[in-house]
Amino acid sequence: MGKLDETLQRIGKLDAEAMAAAAERQDRLSKPKGALGVLEIISIKVAGILGEPIPEPGAKTVIVMAADHGVVEEGVSLYPAEVTAQMVHNFLSGGAAINVLSRHVGANVTVVDVGVASDLAGEGLVVKKIAPGTANMALGPAMSREQAVAAIEAGIEVAEAEISHGARFLATGDMGIGNTTAASAITACLSGLDPLEVTGRGTGIDDAGLDLKRRVISEALRVNCPDKNDALDVLAKVGGLEIAGIAGVILAAAAAKCPVVIDGFISAAGALVAAGLHEGAPAFMIASHLSVERGHGVILERLGLCPIIHAEMRLGEGTGAALAFSFIDAALKVLREMATFDEAGVSGPEDALEKTQC
Amino acid sequence: MGKLDETLQRIGKLDAEAMAAAAERQDRLSKPKGALGVLEIISIKVAGILGEPIPEPGAKTVIVMAADHGVVEEGVSLYPAEVTAQMVHNFLSGGAAINVLSRHVGANVTVVDVGVASDLAGEGLVVKKIAPGTANMALGPAMSREQAVAAIEAGIEVAEAEISHGARFLATGDMGIGNTTAASAITACLSGLDPLEVTGRGTGIDDAGLDLKRRVISEALRVNCPDKNDALDVLAKVGGLEIAGIAGVILAAAAAKCPVVIDGFISAAGALVAAGLHEGAPAFMIASHLSVERGHGVILERLGLCPIIHAEMRLGEGTGAALAFSFIDAALKVLREMATFDEAGVSGPEDALEKTQC
Repeated sequence: MGKLDETLQRIGKLDAEAMAAAAERQDRLSKPKGALGVLEIISIKVAGILGEPIPEPGAKTVIVMAADHGVVEEGVSLYPAEVTAQMVHNFLSGGAAINVLSRHVGANVTVVDVGVASDLAGEGLVVKKIAPGTANMALGPAMSREQAVAAIEAGIEVAEAEISHGARFLATGDMGIGNTTAASAITACLSGLDPLEVTGRGTGIDDAGLDLKRRVISEALRVNCPDKNDALDVLAKVGGLEIAGIAGVILAAAAAKCPVVIDGFISAAGALVAAGLHEGAPAFMIASHLSVERGHGVILERLGLCPIIHAEMRLGEGTGAALAFSFIDAALKVLREMATFDEAGVSGPEDALEKTQC
Repeated sequence: MGKLDETLQRIGKLDAEAMAAAAERQDRLSKPKGALGVLEIISIKVAGILGEPIPEPGAKTVIVMAADHGVVEEGVSLYPAEVTAQMVHNFLSGGAAINVLSRHVGANVTVVDVGVASDLAGEGLVVKKIAPGTANMALGPAMSREQAVAAIEAGIEVAEAEISHGARFLATGDMGIGNTTAASAITACLSGLDPLEVTGRGTGIDDAGLDLKRRVISEALRVNCPDKNDALDVLAKVGGLEIAGIAGVILAAAAAKCPVVIDGFISAAGALVAAGLHEGAPAFMIASHLSVERGHGVILERLGLCPIIHAEMRLGEGTGAALAFSFIDAALKVLREMATFDEAGVSGPEDALEKTQC
């Protein structure tokens, strides 16, 4: 059995007992029931994932998957393809947004070349190059099925290594000029929606660019005829190597019972593929932000995930996920550190009822 | 001239030069223009408030204003009035949600008794009691105009003391059983909307309780006839002492060119009053979260503020504002620490255009 199948087989369910204990404690904390909304929900979900009634915050890693896209030659992006490699160097030297935000929340950043077009080296870079970028999906499949599996397995390996080195929380991130085109194509195909409804401006293309991008996606779907009931087929034909890597990170996290924070549109496309490969995967995902890319909200809704941050971000790299780590830590600290009604000597609503009845 | 008028006279405008410099730097950072959305907008706004092109993160304080409400005798809340005083003790001993979340983001908490019904004492408590709670607004004015001014001025004094002790960023918070009734009445009156549209379940009342609450608010507006063109009249007749105190904190922050983070519905009602007293006040406000209380979104829209956090919170205390401090710090670090395109050796979109033209 291959690494992917073996990983899929290990994905289980959340720990219902730990979740019930966490929920019961939330209701005893000195606040109205449910008044901390999604913070409470996150704390209960993390309890279920980790199998701990009062989970401790722990080490956090953002895994940034980088790869290039053959479809860029159709003119779908505002930036030249070499920016992918340049940004990888920016990540490695600590000057990119994901570095600043990860430092801010106390997370590590691991950068993975899973398919950048040029040869890259640099301290800290994890090289798992499956191909020097995908082929142009407007002309034929972006990848072979074997390449897609290999890229997923590269993601699995990276996540497993991070977890074995002590990471308790993972987040996904991406870099790849042209990758909103691939994410839109995946989303259109797996959701059954028209590319019009799931395609946005990426790094900032104008109306003419957006028209072109939508036509290219429609053409790619027509040329490749991906099978919407086979997530791997969709991923291979109209996806990207970094999207495959992200799907792998998510599946490995789910198999290891490790919460995984989903960044923006590209990461969500990886999450949609992961959910297509195992329906139990979304239970281990935590949404971070809602991107301005229209396809992002579509995916989160399908996965049943609620993004906390609404900040009109559209950068990728894992930036929204890094910011969300601060919320997750906050949620766990609330569950762990707040006084209960009893400890604080605060009257609950039942007392009020008794008094009303007197 | 009284302290309130003197404070209103000192409120000026944002520093346009600092904002232009911050915006220009944002556009040179190694990311697509505007891709960090509200994080970029916040960094530029803070630059304008502080008058610094690259503002430094600094000391943060959440000011929690506590007071009681005579209208509680109408049965509008699920909790008994004594919970206000009990929660003040919880704040002082560090066990409440606002304590946990403030510790998480590195903010101080200052608790102010501006009108709790019982006599309170405790280490760290700031006592500025104007009255032992408001009168029942369903029967007559909640406060006299003089009491409302005194409570605003209490808020001004507390904020000025915090700023003089080194706080560079303030946030507002509240505690007061019954205060969503007052906030809804203020919002209905100042927005001209029906109480139905701005009244929610507060700490969690059921349908019958919600009906009662709306009827009480309608009755309070009928009995008191507040003048919607006179924010002070509205505040006095259907407001609360802690809402007045919050308005004072906001006005003092604006006068001192100090960013002030607005928490949930109660804080927003205070912000609406502050904006009614000086139209320049909202320029110094930063929204934090969007509460499930329906009136909250109404106010934020009127003030032109965009909440970042959508987490279905409805606790008050300053909890949403404390969480938002993490974002504001993140926004300032992005502006300060990210590499520019030049520094990172990353091609911009112009390069792409040149290449396309070759």
